[in-house]
Formats: sequence, structure tokens, C-alpha cells
Amino acid sequence: MVYLTRVEHFNAAHKLYNPGWTREHNEEVFGKCANENWHGHNYELYVTIKGQPNPDTGFVFDVKKLSEIIKEKVIEQIDHKNLNIDVPFLEGKMCSTENLAIGIWQQLQLFLPAEVQLHAIKLYETPRIYVEYFGE
Amino acid sequence: MVYLTRVEHFNAAHKLYNPGWTREHNEEVFGKCANENWHGHNYELYVTIKGQPNPDTGFVFDVKKLSEIIKEKVIEQIDHKNLNIDVPFLEGKMCSTENLAIGIWQQLQLFLPAEVQLHAIKLYETPRIYVEYFGE
Amino acid sequence: MVYLTRVEHFNAAHKLYNPGWTREHNEEVFGKCANENWHGHNYELYVTIKGQPNPDTGFVFDVKKLSEIIKEKVIEQIDHKNLNIDVPFLEGKMCSTENLAIGIWQQLQLFLPAEVQLHAIKLYETPRIYVEYFGE
Amino acid sequence: MVYLTRVEHFNAAHKLYNPGWTREHNEEVFGKCANENWHGHNYELYVTIKGQPNPDTGFVFDVKKLSEIIKEKVIEQIDHKNLNIDVPFLEGKMCSTENLAIGIWQQLQLFLPAEVQLHAIKLYETPRIYVEYFGE
Amino acid sequence: MVYLTRVEHFNAAHKLYNPGWTREHNEEVFGKCANENWHGHNYELYVTIKGQPNPDTGFVFDVKKLSEIIKEKVIEQIDHKNLNIDVPFLEGKMCSTENLAIGIWQQLQLFLPAEVQLHAIKLYETPRIYVEYFGE
Amino acid sequence: MVYLTRVEHFNAAHKLYNPGWTREHNEEVFGKCANENWHGHNYELYVTIKGQPNPDTGFVFDVKKLSEIIKEKVIEQIDHKNLNIDVPFLEGKMCSTENLAIGIWQQLQLFLPAEVQLHAIKLYETPRIYVEYFGE
Repeated sequence: MVYLTRVEHFNAAHKLYNPGWTREHNEEVFGKCANENWHGHNYELYVTIKGQPNPDTGFVFDVKKLSEIIKEKVIEQIDHKNLNIDVPFLEGKMCSTENLAIGIWQQLQLFLPAEVQLHAIKLYETPRIYVEYFGE
Repeated sequence: MVYLTRVEHFNAAHKLYNPGWTREHNEEVFGKCANENWHGHNYELYVTIKGQPNPDTGFVFDVKKLSEIIKEKVIEQIDHKNLNIDVPFLEGKMCSTENLAIGIWQQLQLFLPAEVQLHAIKLYETPRIYVEYFGE
Repeated sequence: MVYLTRVEHFNAAHKLYNPGWTREHNEEVFGKCANENWHGHNYELYVTIKGQPNPDTGFVFDVKKLSEIIKEKVIEQIDHKNLNIDVPFLEGKMCSTENLAIGIWQQLQLFLPAEVQLHAIKLYETPRIYVEYFGE
Repeated sequence: MVYLTRVEHFNAAHKLYNPGWTREHNEEVFGKCANENWHGHNYELYVTIKGQPNPDTGFVFDVKKLSEIIKEKVIEQIDHKNLNIDVPFLEGKMCSTENLAIGIWQQLQLFLPAEVQLHAIKLYETPRIYVEYFGE
Repeated sequence: MVYLTRVEHFNAAHKLYNPGWTREHNEEVFGKCANENWHGHNYELYVTIKGQPNPDTGFVFDVKKLSEIIKEKVIEQIDHKNLNIDVPFLEGKMCSTENLAIGIWQQLQLFLPAEVQLHAIKLYETPRIYVEYFGE
Repeated sequence: MVYLTRVEHFNAAHKLYNPGWTREHNEEVFGKCANENWHGHNYELYVTIKGQPNPDTGFVFDVKKLSEIIKEKVIEQIDHKNLNIDVPFLEGKMCSTENLAIGIWQQLQLFLPAEVQLHAIKLYETPRIYVEYFGE
């Protein structure tokens, strides 16, 4: 079993704001991340798949194809977007890095070929904060 | 003459949008950067000053004090903010990285002690795009 | 289950020196790391916790609170310190990166709220050497 | 149990080319990576071992000795080499990053002292593509 | 005057080999870089232009257009190529990083719009070696 | 004219402490950097030289020789050392990054071949603080 990772980049606006709470409570809990006028990040997305290398190619899976699927099905939907407003797969969820990573996992699962086993989503929100999700 | 650089971090939302143009023309010129719902970035800010090291301290200037001035006078005003809406020193200007770097230079000049000579502002918008401004 | 990581920075002096050995044997085993006058490092500390995201916040745990706990309970005790002399939780142990990582794990366990599950300590001593500890 | 990682660097030429296929089929499958005149990479190699720290040294294993073994037994054979032509332990295999990581694992296993437990090989082909292999 | 930099990536094979010298003398001068079977690198290319920001856009020049010109006119010609064999603008020159940087400058000058002032080419051959060229 | 840079690494202990001042005044001025028991850093050293590429080699200067000179004449003297105690070329000077960069420039000037023109010393003390010195 070999694990193959491809790193992609996107940037987006968001705010941490629970619409069921008052403005004051949002500011209490989320601090400056609750700024109503939004803030944003450069995200680094690591997608890891696993499998046996094919003897004819030496590949677990063609990393160029993996990159194309990530770009078409995930990056296209979140790059230069407002995560709270523009992204169908985040609707109704808090826009934390945790939920964004879970959403990206679920989105990729819909579009990866059956022979590809997704292993992990790792998502940097800043160079000093990241989350990882393994599907369960 | 020795050059001393301190690196600080902030993140913010913005859009590239000229209010004097139609929406269509903005999208033509700025592409997805014109998204009306904003996007955002993690910015890395490099502030370089220059001078003779003081023989008693070995310092051009105390880098901790430099960091405090940058944080109080610049980062406080732009971190977790919307650059098009929340930042007085950018009012009436297009929110490009170029103009943000010039604005930071002008803002710092107001507050750096007279003995400190500002040399350069270097500002990364993404890991692959940065601008530099030397005051003229 | 989502894994959340916060990265913090500190620097410190140390030497690799077993006081039960002669100077010659220390130099034989530890080479220039045994320099009696000390050397030092910039350390990068990765603290990973795990849990279910809270539906109200989207957070496994508030990363700002996690950062404050790490800074107060760990960084304060080791930043700009001599690891062989100044750090109670390393007393009587060899000052290797391995033992420093284990010590940081034990120190954090004393102060993390009961609902937080510590998963891993990853500690870079140089950009080319790091250790990981998972608590067992 | 503590995990200790050492990072080493090498660079090499290769092409992705299955000699059992026509030139056209190679280009179809591997695109510009099939360029008959070769291309190349700077590789970053992460070698992770695991064990109990020795109480006398604080070490899982002396990282300088680990580095020497990696350099002598692995880097010497692949640095500034053509992976398709010059490397005995890759003969008859496709020169993918996957197979290179497996080959490095097998090569290291032959030369690591019996008390050292190899845990993982992580190999960056570019800053955006890496593979990991855990020996099974 | 503001300086704007765009970073691009490519990888290539090459060898350092003066065809006017014997094999022995090449090995004497270039060591393992003279390997007849080639080696290769991941290169990081920094292209810096300078100018006054346009008040309507805030841009010195549209960085997306700059990126497209670099990719079409430079990266296309050297990415996944053999620098000694495949690259017209290096013909008859030694394939050092110095000459590659000068060649890229000359190539870009042919295709940058008249209003764009090229300021610098910075080229990393490895994370520890880079050259800079300012056109004279 | 082409500029060639080689990056080297070392680590060392130091303290910021003016022996002509009281302990209290040192702590007032230098804060935790004045810790009498020392602290330390991983330093990244960038050495830049300039010149015309030699047509026979394509080199401004052989970067491997440059690296050997830096290692023998500079790194050997400061790596795994105490900068306040162990380093002849810093004797009698405050151990700031500024003075360390100037000292490295002067040390290198003694040993670089006459045909090599030193252009700059850039020295990172932490990933967020660096100084540059151009010899005047």
C-alpha cells in the first residue's frame, strides 16, 4: 500500500458567525473572526489517496488526473469564493476549517473513480493552523 | 549600514472592483477576483529598516519594538478586516497588493520613531505573488 | 473525528551531555552537540488534538484557546531558556528532542480541559530533524 | 514509542516510459513526463524510524548515524543520477515516485542496524506531489 | 515605483558538460554534475517587473497576464525538457543556472508588452542555490 | 553581472548582554534575550557573490567551492558554538544578528579568492527576523 498526496491552493472569504446567536455572542465566541464584513485566507489543500502501484505505470493513480478532479470538483467551487454564501456543499454548516475539510472529503468521494481510495484531507487555514480528516 | 527585516502575518477579505465601472467590465478585467461576495488571503508582510548598529546593543533598532509598532499601527487595522470597507488608509483606492503595500509604507512612516529609516515593504498576497515598495 | 493542529515557535539553548559520563565519552557519543558552552535551536512545535466538531461553532476546540494554553503552560517555560538548567519538567532527563517532546506532552496533559483529547506532539529541532510522540 | 525523522535531499533525472509500449502510447499515458530526452527533480526524502529513547542518551537512535547510513546507502546511489539507467535497485521497474519510495525502503532495510525499526519513507517529487510507504 | 513578482515552477534535466573538453576534465571540474546520463532539478522562477500602479486597477500590470506570458513563452520551452538538448535559447551555451537565468531574461524581453519593465530574474536550482540577473 | 547565492545552516547559543551594564538594565533592554543561562537559534546564512559567468563553465564561481569556503572558514567557527564565548571574530562585540552578519562578511573577505566579489550577507535568526549587510 502506497499513499499519494497532491497539494492544491485556493483562497476564499468567510466569517465565523452562527446566525442563531446575537451579534454580541458571536463576537464573544469568535472574536475578530466574526467580523461581519468578512475576512479571508489562502488555503493549502492536501489530498491523500492510497493503493497498490500498477506495475505498467508505477502509479497508484495518475497524479495529473487526480489534480484535474480536485480542481474541477472542489477548487472551482471554493476558489475566490465566499464560503458562507457561494458554496452549496457548505450550506447550513458553520464555516470552520473542520467543516470545510469534511465537506471537501464528501465532495471528492462523489467524483473520484471507484478504484481510487481516498485516505485523508489535510487543510491549512494559515501556516500555523491545519486540520485533518480521514472519513470517519 | 545594516538592513533589518521583521515579518508579520495578517489575513483579510477584499475584492478587485472599480466602482466607476459596470459589473461586466469589472469581471472582464479582474476575473474571479471581482466576485461581489469577496474572497481573501493570508498576507505575509516584510518590513525592512536600515541604519548603523548601536555599539551598546548591537541593534539597528530593537526588533521587538519594531514588531510592536507594526502590530499596533498596521496589523490592528487590517487583520481579519475587509480591505475595501474597513481600512481608513485604503479609502478611495483600488485594493490591489500594490496599493496595500504603499498604504502600509505611508501608515508606518507616521509612527516610526524619527531615528528609524524605513527601507522597504514587501507584501506576499499568495505564496506565488508579492510586491515591493521602497518609498518612491 | 477531526484532527486539529496548532504550530507554535520557541528557541532555546541546550547541550547533549550525560553528567554520569566523562567529558571525553560525552564528546565521543554526542560530538559537537556536547559543547560545554552550549548551542541552541529554533524549535517548531506542532500540537494535534482530536474530536468531533461542535455543531454550534464548527470547532473541535477553539484554536485560539489551544494556542493560549500552549503558550502559557509550555512556551513560557522553555522559550529563551536553557533546557538543561531552566526547565523543571526536564530535570534529570537527557535534553534530546525525543525527551523534550515527551515532556511537552506530559505538561500539556496537566492543563488541557478534560474534553480535549491530545493526539500528537511533533517537534522540529532543525528543518531536517523532527520527532513525534503519540502518548504511548 | 517515539518517531524520529531525518530529511535528506537529492536530485536526479528520469522519464516515465514503459519500454513494452509504443512511443505514442507512452506519450498518451505519461504526457510530457515521457520526454525521451529526460527531465528531472529535486527530491526531498523523509526517513522515519521508531523506538524507545535510550535513557543514557535520550535518543531513539543517533540521528547523525542515521543520516550517514541514508547518505552512504541511498543518496550515493541516486543523487545526480539517471533513475532509469544508473540505479541497480530500480532496474526493471517503472521510475515512478511510488516505486522509488518502495526501493528506498528496501535498500535501507538491508543496512539499518537490527535495533532500528524503520517506520516510513516519505518522498517529495515536487513541492506539490509526495508519496509515503510504510513497508506493507 | 512598485516591484511586482510572480513565481513559477518547472523541472528539467541537464548536465554540466563542456563538449570542448575531455570526459576526465569535465568530471574534474563539474564532479557528479557531469554525469553523462544526466540529472535534474525542480526550478523555482521569480520574475520581477516594475512600474507605477494604474489608478483604475491598482496594478503595475495584470499578474495573471504576466503569468500567462511566462508560461507560454518560457515554461513551455523548458518544463519537462532536457536543457542541453531541447531548448533553442540555450543552444551553444553551458547549462548553468547563471546562463539559464540570462536566457530566460532575453526570452521574456522578446514577448513582454512594451509598457512592462522587466526588473529581475531570480532562479532557484535547489532550495540552497539561486542566481539573480538584472539585465546588465 | 550575475548574482549567485548559496544558503548554509548553523545553530548556536548566545545571549544579549552588555557586560558594562547591571543585570537589571540588561533585562530592561533585552528582556528574555538577556537570560544569563543562554538561549539559541537555528541560523540560515545566505552568501551572495557577483560576477560575469565564465564562458567555459557558465559559472560566476563554482558553487561547491563557495560552499566549502563558507563551511571551513565560517560555519566551522560558529556551528554548535556559544557566540558570546567561543567565536574569535565576535570578541568584544554585542552578539546581535547585525554584528554576526558583519563579522561573517569580514571573515569571508579574508578567505574568498581575489576574483570573487562578495555582494551580500543575509542572516535569518528566526523565520521572522533577518538582517542584510552589503559591506558598507
